[in-house]
Amino acid sequence: MNRRKFLAAAVALATPTIRAFNQSPNIVLINADDLGYGDVGCYGSRIRTPNIDRLASEGMRFTDFYATSSVCSPSRAALMTGRYPVRTGVAGVLQPFDTNGLPASETTVAQMLKTAGYRTMCVGKWHLGSRREFMPTNRGFDEYFGIPYSNDMWPLPLMRGTDVVEETANLESITVRYTEQAVSFIQRSKESPFFLYFAHTSPHIPLLASVKFRGGSELGAYGDVVEEMDWSVGEVLRALDENGLAENTLVLFTSDNGPWYQGSRGRFRGRKGETFEGGMRVPFLARLPGKIEPGSVCRAMATNMDFLPTLARASNAALPAQPLDGMDIWPLLSGEKTELERQAFLYFTLWHLQCARVGPWKLHLSRFNKNAWGPDPAGGSANLPLAKPELYNLENDPEETYDCSQRYPKVVADIRAMVEYMLPTLPEQVQSAWSDTMRRRVTFTPAGALPVEEKP
Amino acid sequence: MNRRKFLAAAVALATPTIRAFNQSPNIVLINADDLGYGDVGCYGSRIRTPNIDRLASEGMRFTDFYATSSVCSPSRAALMTGRYPVRTGVAGVLQPFDTNGLPASETTVAQMLKTAGYRTMCVGKWHLGSRREFMPTNRGFDEYFGIPYSNDMWPLPLMRGTDVVEETANLESITVRYTEQAVSFIQRSKESPFFLYFAHTSPHIPLLASVKFRGGSELGAYGDVVEEMDWSVGEVLRALDENGLAENTLVLFTSDNGPWYQGSRGRFRGRKGETFEGGMRVPFLARLPGKIEPGSVCRAMATNMDFLPTLARASNAALPAQPLDGMDIWPLLSGEKTELERQAFLYFTLWHLQCARVGPWKLHLSRFNKNAWGPDPAGGSANLPLAKPELYNLENDPEETYDCSQRYPKVVADIRAMVEYMLPTLPEQVQSAWSDTMRRRVTFTPAGALPVEEKP
Repeated sequence: MNRRKFLAAAVALATPTIRAFNQSPNIVLINADDLGYGDVGCYGSRIRTPNIDRLASEGMRFTDFYATSSVCSPSRAALMTGRYPVRTGVAGVLQPFDTNGLPASETTVAQMLKTAGYRTMCVGKWHLGSRREFMPTNRGFDEYFGIPYSNDMWPLPLMRGTDVVEETANLESITVRYTEQAVSFIQRSKESPFFLYFAHTSPHIPLLASVKFRGGSELGAYGDVVEEMDWSVGEVLRALDENGLAENTLVLFTSDNGPWYQGSRGRFRGRKGETFEGGMRVPFLARLPGKIEPGSVCRAMATNMDFLPTLARASNAALPAQPLDGMDIWPLLSGEKTELERQAFLYFTLWHLQCARVGPWKLHLSRFNKNAWGPDPAGGSANLPLAKPELYNLENDPEETYDCSQRYPKVVADIRAMVEYMLPTLPEQVQSAWSDTMRRRVTFTPAGALPVEEKP
Repeated sequence: MNRRKFLAAAVALATPTIRAFNQSPNIVLINADDLGYGDVGCYGSRIRTPNIDRLASEGMRFTDFYATSSVCSPSRAALMTGRYPVRTGVAGVLQPFDTNGLPASETTVAQMLKTAGYRTMCVGKWHLGSRREFMPTNRGFDEYFGIPYSNDMWPLPLMRGTDVVEETANLESITVRYTEQAVSFIQRSKESPFFLYFAHTSPHIPLLASVKFRGGSELGAYGDVVEEMDWSVGEVLRALDENGLAENTLVLFTSDNGPWYQGSRGRFRGRKGETFEGGMRVPFLARLPGKIEPGSVCRAMATNMDFLPTLARASNAALPAQPLDGMDIWPLLSGEKTELERQAFLYFTLWHLQCARVGPWKLHLSRFNKNAWGPDPAGGSANLPLAKPELYNLENDPEETYDCSQRYPKVVADIRAMVEYMLPTLPEQVQSAWSDTMRRRVTFTPAGALPVEEKP
């Protein structure tokens, strides 16, 4: 571990080489809601997901892929823009009556692909602003059919474009209806390249499978819902096959964050809402026949911020004129490289920088605590510094349980230096949140425990 | 799943067939403190534990072995008596100045083995009462050398018998000194059968390895401490080898509960203090050359309450005249059986019955909540009923994450009936705690979330 090399890597901002494909592929990006790392067959689950597993056997499976946030809206902001959510202003979960959303100054993947001649459709959960100006059809999508935010929020309209078509969406049939819309779009879009962003409402709670799938899984209502989502993936793949589009369609499958109350985080620690790996490490599969090696596995770190620059290359679209945090991962997908040199990956809760990953190392610097004043609670949440930073080797220790900071002080110092170097490039809110955290005093807590603030 | 069979199994109290071994084996029982299921090599850890792994390759490794409590004192009460901790009165963690301990009415493994002519020694952490009458030398052990409770409690005396030999125990050298005492006892006990109960102080926090091991592990201070404990196991095995005792010594290795702030819970959910599997499923290895098949794996459920009845058979000692909850697992150790028919295994927090396991099924009925009144905390802990019981299939779902109660209502009903059948056989405190829990009203919470009590 070498400080110069670290800083050099930090300077090398993501600058993907755009090289046109011979033919722009169609793009189908499927994004599940709260699906955990261990919730599909090809990641070790006993839930039956033969169609999702087919993407793994016909394409590439990633072991170290991240949603950029452990909650919905910021994760989707990152996916749509290729940037850390804090850069886009969408640092936390948006509520139905919030008047903000992903700002017009941000360029979405859909906007970018439209400039390259793509037809675009969004099916499912949006969650980047529910006022008219923030809705998908005003953010680069030709068509939209779905629920504008999470299925546990209220009211729960089903929308087409910016019109409400069902006051309260019937959730039991929602996966079937989403799938019909997706298949119809594929059939209608044969002539031009298309981008289908299919953002499932499930397996976010409430867990409501349709009658056909209810009680079918050995793994409860959650299993039912995931098996129905897998059926939907199968229908999409079948539509590609039947319309002769499979060979020229890049299919991507991932999730917006780790599992919430139910769902498997695999071997990792933490769940949705936490910056331990279980909150942010998610499945990612990519299939493009003839270009991505069937049955391949990629162990390099990658994130959902990488979609935008990667799809820019695939579509020969120009990159948005704003700093990107994602990288073009085509060299990984094509098998040309097995690892990319990249900046530290930063983990945020709201505006709070919590951890940084470099290679196998993850350094925890602060921790968000919903009840920051310990067992005699004065109430209120706070982000608190750790009494000392914790260092985990994710290769040896996916559970983030053996703090190695004392054994590897140089790694700690190097990553700290890299973080200090990156901070001034991030929005002012991040920097002031960081200063505020570092000014707080906490009492000693054992590694892995929530810090507790000293009473004034 | 059949209710009659369930109830029949419930009626069949543990009645081990005692059959004398030709020769009573020596017994070495090593009990680690807060060592998690995934913290040793033969259970998937990258911490180097060649000596502990040697017990697995030369003996039997259990996959479904339980400490009977997720915290120290009750777990040790179960180990010592073969009974649920609630039967012994030791339902929670004892503090240094507590005046109670394991009551004189309880018979310990050591007392039982003394009646069969065994020399007995306890080395390490006791934690079943620190007043003179509760100390090991008054509970069946000829000798004692160790710390009477946890290494994070105060004061921290090191004791021999009932005398303090070091006001504040030097923890950095404690593993070395324990090991010297254990080896010396083995050397001194060659002539008669002996029982060595070696209860390590580590890897309970604070994590202090001796100089020789400090910084040696790739997995931090926790790794150092476990590697030193493994060295100690190696020294004990060497003493057996060098004194010609290995062939006639039953060596058992386990842990008192799951890992706390650090340490790996393997694929399971939860940690020390919780009744999810991670709090209670622990490693268990057993070696007896010529009697236990080298390199064998047992997938049957077993618990640390089973030690007393199993050692009764091995030593040809009479069982204590009190109801036992443990079973003689010699049929598993000898390979004669791969499964035992047994009662539901009950999970308690303090006096509160929380879950029951039968075969692969685990039913959660209530959950202990340290902050039972939700985010605007009126403070205080409570055991609360779940809005509806949660059913998990541990074979398909070791993480206890997919609630199957709706899919298998009959399994839920059968286990509930079995629990109702067992309750009257348990102490009054358990029954009143249960009634109190079931009277409480909680608001709906998704499966796997902590229940929240309704404000009056």
